[in-house]
Amino acid sequence: MIYSETYRIRNYETDPEGRLWLSALANLLQDAADCHANQLGVGRPELLAWDLAWVLHRLVLSVNRWPRLGESITLETNPSGEERVYIYRDFRGYDSAGKLLFTATSTWLVLNLSTRRLTTPAPEIKRLFEPYRHLEHLPRPSGKFPAAPGTWTYQTTLQPRHNEIDANLHVNNGVYFQWLLESLPFDFLATHHCHHVDLVFKAEGQRGETVQVLSGPVGPNRFVHRVLNPQQAELVVALSTWSGPEAS
Amino acid sequence: MIYSETYRIRNYETDPEGRLWLSALANLLQDAADCHANQLGVGRPELLAWDLAWVLHRLVLSVNRWPRLGESITLETNPSGEERVYIYRDFRGYDSAGKLLFTATSTWLVLNLSTRRLTTPAPEIKRLFEPYRHLEHLPRPSGKFPAAPGTWTYQTTLQPRHNEIDANLHVNNGVYFQWLLESLPFDFLATHHCHHVDLVFKAEGQRGETVQVLSGPVGPNRFVHRVLNPQQAELVVALSTWSGPEAS
Repeated sequence: MIYSETYRIRNYETDPEGRLWLSALANLLQDAADCHANQLGVGRPELLAWDLAWVLHRLVLSVNRWPRLGESITLETNPSGEERVYIYRDFRGYDSAGKLLFTATSTWLVLNLSTRRLTTPAPEIKRLFEPYRHLEHLPRPSGKFPAAPGTWTYQTTLQPRHNEIDANLHVNNGVYFQWLLESLPFDFLATHHCHHVDLVFKAEGQRGETVQVLSGPVGPNRFVHRVLNPQQAELVVALSTWSGPEAS
Repeated sequence: MIYSETYRIRNYETDPEGRLWLSALANLLQDAADCHANQLGVGRPELLAWDLAWVLHRLVLSVNRWPRLGESITLETNPSGEERVYIYRDFRGYDSAGKLLFTATSTWLVLNLSTRRLTTPAPEIKRLFEPYRHLEHLPRPSGKFPAAPGTWTYQTTLQPRHNEIDANLHVNNGVYFQWLLESLPFDFLATHHCHHVDLVFKAEGQRGETVQVLSGPVGPNRFVHRVLNPQQAELVVALSTWSGPEAS
């Protein structure tokens, strides 16, 4: 009932210190969620046939320890309740000794593709998730983001690569987690590690669009991030918290 | 003796048509090669201890059919001989029915990290590869690239992302396969598929460097590619051959 899969951390998924990249972890979460939704009969193909699509709205990740190159991690995921238009899914990652590496909780929406409006999940979908109601769930994402910092200390512009575009011709979810890091200096990433990220998807990124990534401090080792499209609309807002500096 | 591993093709590894991206395939080849070298006792850590490093020099890929989202492919790889400073490694990919999806042959060099010069592989390394000599090997990469086309029809500039940098602080091998595609129009990729790539690594890409990617036709659905650093030095030269157009 709970989906579980083991992933070995591959060379190209790790940073120069051999730790899993944030975006690579986001991709694994997405993969496990896709596999489980397919298994439950509410994957992308089924939803498309009903003229619906899943939209990831928010993802909150807490990391105890980043897995390293060559490690095998066990990822468990399950739906974890619903509330109005929101459907929740939790993730827990364990190392080979069974120690908790990270948890993540995600909030999903169902989009009606004809009307382009959010829709309350159909009873068929809700019914599927009933058995999961009695499971203990992780804290639901809540809370507003701190106001924008006085200055955006770090910024960069970038364009989606062809391989960052998904089947809906929008920017893939996992990509934004990497984009946030692109605005931070490489040396910061080598000497700090991220232990908390809260990310909200506000609008879909289009291919060909140059985006602006802004990051500014709102506390010690704590940043607010914005990804803006050329019309200055927010595609993503995020908050990240870091430990360090460490010897690299 | 031959290393074999099964890989399920994940959502974020495929193009909008659901076919594995070229760069994602290059990453899987790199992963299998790494795993096998580690198993044979000549992985990155062992070579580092001898002050040596593997350098990928050339990779030639021939694709019969691109695997699709959700498919499981079996990747087999083995060393396949040596010649002066060159060490060869072959790859064969099969679908779940045992049909050959693709083959690839790669040429590797051993770099002495102190002198930064290529070195003839040590007898300990050569001895390891002896049992593989009697295996049938794929055709060795040979042949020069066609001269540069009259015009570079397609070009783009880009900067390595943080997550494209490897443990040696250079651009990861698999990344170049994606960069070649970045210069081609997205609509071309959606309506054609690549069935042959021959790629030679000439110099190491550095982080922070803006590179120029040039692609020009040298025949019907056949392109020569160059990746140049800011000093106009060639990092990669490649030749790709495509089929199509197809209905997308």
